[in-house]
Amino acid sequence: MILNIIRQTISEYNLFNKGERVLIGLSGGADSVCLTYALNILKKELDIELFTAHINHGIRGDEATQDEQFAIRFSEKLGLKCFVKHINIPEIAHNTGQSEETAGRQARYDFFSYISAENGIDKIATAHNKNDNAETIIMNFIRGGSLSGLCGIPYKRGSIVRPLLNAERSEIEKYCIKNDLEFVTDSTNLENDYTRNKIRNLLIPQIENEFNTNFISTVTANSILIREDNKYLDKCTKEVYKRIVSSNIIDIDGLLKNDISIQRRLIRMALYNFYGTLDGVSSVFIDDILMLAEKNSGKSINIYNNTQVKNEYGKLIITNSENVDVQGFEYRLTVGKTYIIDEIKKKVVVSEVCSRQKDGAVYLNNNGVNEIILRNRKNGDRFYPSGMSGSKKIKEYFINSKIPKDERNKIPIIEIDGKIAAVGQRVDEHFLFYDKGIKIEFYNI
Amino acid sequence: MILNIIRQTISEYNLFNKGERVLIGLSGGADSVCLTYALNILKKELDIELFTAHINHGIRGDEATQDEQFAIRFSEKLGLKCFVKHINIPEIAHNTGQSEETAGRQARYDFFSYISAENGIDKIATAHNKNDNAETIIMNFIRGGSLSGLCGIPYKRGSIVRPLLNAERSEIEKYCIKNDLEFVTDSTNLENDYTRNKIRNLLIPQIENEFNTNFISTVTANSILIREDNKYLDKCTKEVYKRIVSSNIIDIDGLLKNDISIQRRLIRMALYNFYGTLDGVSSVFIDDILMLAEKNSGKSINIYNNTQVKNEYGKLIITNSENVDVQGFEYRLTVGKTYIIDEIKKKVVVSEVCSRQKDGAVYLNNNGVNEIILRNRKNGDRFYPSGMSGSKKIKEYFINSKIPKDERNKIPIIEIDGKIAAVGQRVDEHFLFYDKGIKIEFYNI
Repeated sequence: MILNIIRQTISEYNLFNKGERVLIGLSGGADSVCLTYALNILKKELDIELFTAHINHGIRGDEATQDEQFAIRFSEKLGLKCFVKHINIPEIAHNTGQSEETAGRQARYDFFSYISAENGIDKIATAHNKNDNAETIIMNFIRGGSLSGLCGIPYKRGSIVRPLLNAERSEIEKYCIKNDLEFVTDSTNLENDYTRNKIRNLLIPQIENEFNTNFISTVTANSILIREDNKYLDKCTKEVYKRIVSSNIIDIDGLLKNDISIQRRLIRMALYNFYGTLDGVSSVFIDDILMLAEKNSGKSINIYNNTQVKNEYGKLIITNSENVDVQGFEYRLTVGKTYIIDEIKKKVVVSEVCSRQKDGAVYLNNNGVNEIILRNRKNGDRFYPSGMSGSKKIKEYFINSKIPKDERNKIPIIEIDGKIAAVGQRVDEHFLFYDKGIKIEFYNI
Repeated sequence: MILNIIRQTISEYNLFNKGERVLIGLSGGADSVCLTYALNILKKELDIELFTAHINHGIRGDEATQDEQFAIRFSEKLGLKCFVKHINIPEIAHNTGQSEETAGRQARYDFFSYISAENGIDKIATAHNKNDNAETIIMNFIRGGSLSGLCGIPYKRGSIVRPLLNAERSEIEKYCIKNDLEFVTDSTNLENDYTRNKIRNLLIPQIENEFNTNFISTVTANSILIREDNKYLDKCTKEVYKRIVSSNIIDIDGLLKNDISIQRRLIRMALYNFYGTLDGVSSVFIDDILMLAEKNSGKSINIYNNTQVKNEYGKLIITNSENVDVQGFEYRLTVGKTYIIDEIKKKVVVSEVCSRQKDGAVYLNNNGVNEIILRNRKNGDRFYPSGMSGSKKIKEYFINSKIPKDERNKIPIIEIDGKIAAVGQRVDEHFLFYDKGIKIEFYNI
């Protein structure tokens, strides 16, 4: 049953390609043990190579050490290499002011992407199940998550995939028992914060008893329909976005002639592309921005994180008032390493890859690379923007692309063996990626 | 506060036009008493005329009689004419096999539209509030209502409007107390079935205590965003529908080249237009129909209510296997009356109106009308379909419109003073509605 569910999910959502190297996040709980065991059975037919990764989160020392040892032993038994990392989550949470849940999630995914870059991993498989998905949706429904919140956990996002997402927790536990699989019970349940636990243990059982015994399945079935709706709306928004948004500048006429649903989504998309996150963007901000667009030419408003939006000459311009002028910077990059570029508040991961994902990273051809430099602009810089004819001065390219002055020093430039290979997202035509090359990922920090 | 909420809702959703005659559904409960009292204060500034309607639902005789007397007295005090009807809901429910809630709702709206037709009423105002809306959404979330279920109660549908939809129940009760308004407490709460009462009294308070004290407002705010999304999706679907659906026939190529979200909505729209309801149409049926379209040329499937869908020559054809051939029928219609046309299972309401709504009714010019006939086709019938040039034989019109043979005898034809004024929804160009005329509404029975 579980094997079939996994097979079908992988095939329906195209989670793996043949020959890929897959890292499984193995906490040692029933879900990740089931996933590791099942994928290990399926690995030949799927033609994938498996690895596991365990994070010792430094909460309750003894128990965490036992969990770590369990994950290592279990991986060994299946003949899988297990990567382990010790992280002091409580300390990180304390230092950053995040919740342990948020700090834990971020540390986990950071570790996964670090391991991936170091080891040529193509996909990271996590063991989220149908119940996790329903709980997420219910939590978003209660807290107010608009349409995208009601879509639940995605089957695939970038290189992260969830082959167990259609399996119910009870089926997973049955599978473990049937196959004599031991697992640990993480009493902190780092992924499951207080609210989620109450939803799981109090609210869902009550709704199942009083209203709908099939509630989990109902929520799941609905979320599939809603995902389809959301996907279509995103597609429509992207079509408009391409026409009317250039970097951080939105054409107001082009914006306002759309339906309000698309207007809102487009503003969110622009803020997301500006910041790399929508944390803290409530629908009130969106309303304020739309009001600014409709009525207040020449005005500007502050929203969050020192972000300002101006209505200027028929354009909405998103800027960050924290922007003091960025000084010159230059980093020499090595494939497989991760860098923190403090000057532009980015983390940069460099890896060698054999296929391209639609993940927004910069993909470059790597014929005979000796030296990769990450820097900002210098006087006289020129490159051959892909899709344009001939070379352009970067200064002119910035002006034509309507990059505001105070943003220009922050645009990362990749130089390979002395030639400019990419300016921001725009790749030089001599460095266009074909079947093999370098992937450079940027994350906000 | 309440007055401002009502003012703003009316203005934002354009609920009334100047000079309109408005019927308020007055059960005698706090909500409808508040709405009646408040609209009576606002009627001058809104330039509307008010009436009330009360249904004595025949449940617990004494209490129902007292409620009726209360509604009549309250209307009298405000100087408003009150229409009253006695209906034995338990009996109707028993005879039709419906729940009392469903039978009650239907009887209520039937009575409202009857009164409207008889008295030239333009709008029917019901007293649904913000809590009702949130409860409906939560109920749909629990039962599985896809996107449209999460939109909640509409502010406006056809001639029905809800000016209190943005007011919370607690505000309404405060308003009643502050203005010394008495109200009755309907212990059956016909509109509030068992599930709804449990949602109201058990689930919502629990969620408010444990998770989100602003839950009602959160749900409401979200539903506004979701309505916008749903409206946009419906608009996109309608654009496709116009191009690829003709009566009960859907072009398969035209269907399948759309995104799955639009495909599903289009099938639902076609079924709705065929039946006038989506009761009993689950997403399983939609999946079956899409599978039929994709894979099974020459096959047909049964769905619900004796409906069949065939995949024939690249078309999906929706038919009803109950269709025995309809005999000839002919009814003479009088303005202000309601008719039951047994032959085609329709209720027809005829009224005189001064403006056109987008409600799918047939609107006709009424220059010097003496006789209105409703009938089905006869040999030799011709008319001037609006938007086409010249006259067409109805037989050819049916063939060109791809109306299946066994449907043709069921298309209602309106004849005015001996000339054909409409064939189904298609109006003859000599009878196009301008600023005044006859409205003919068709309801499935």
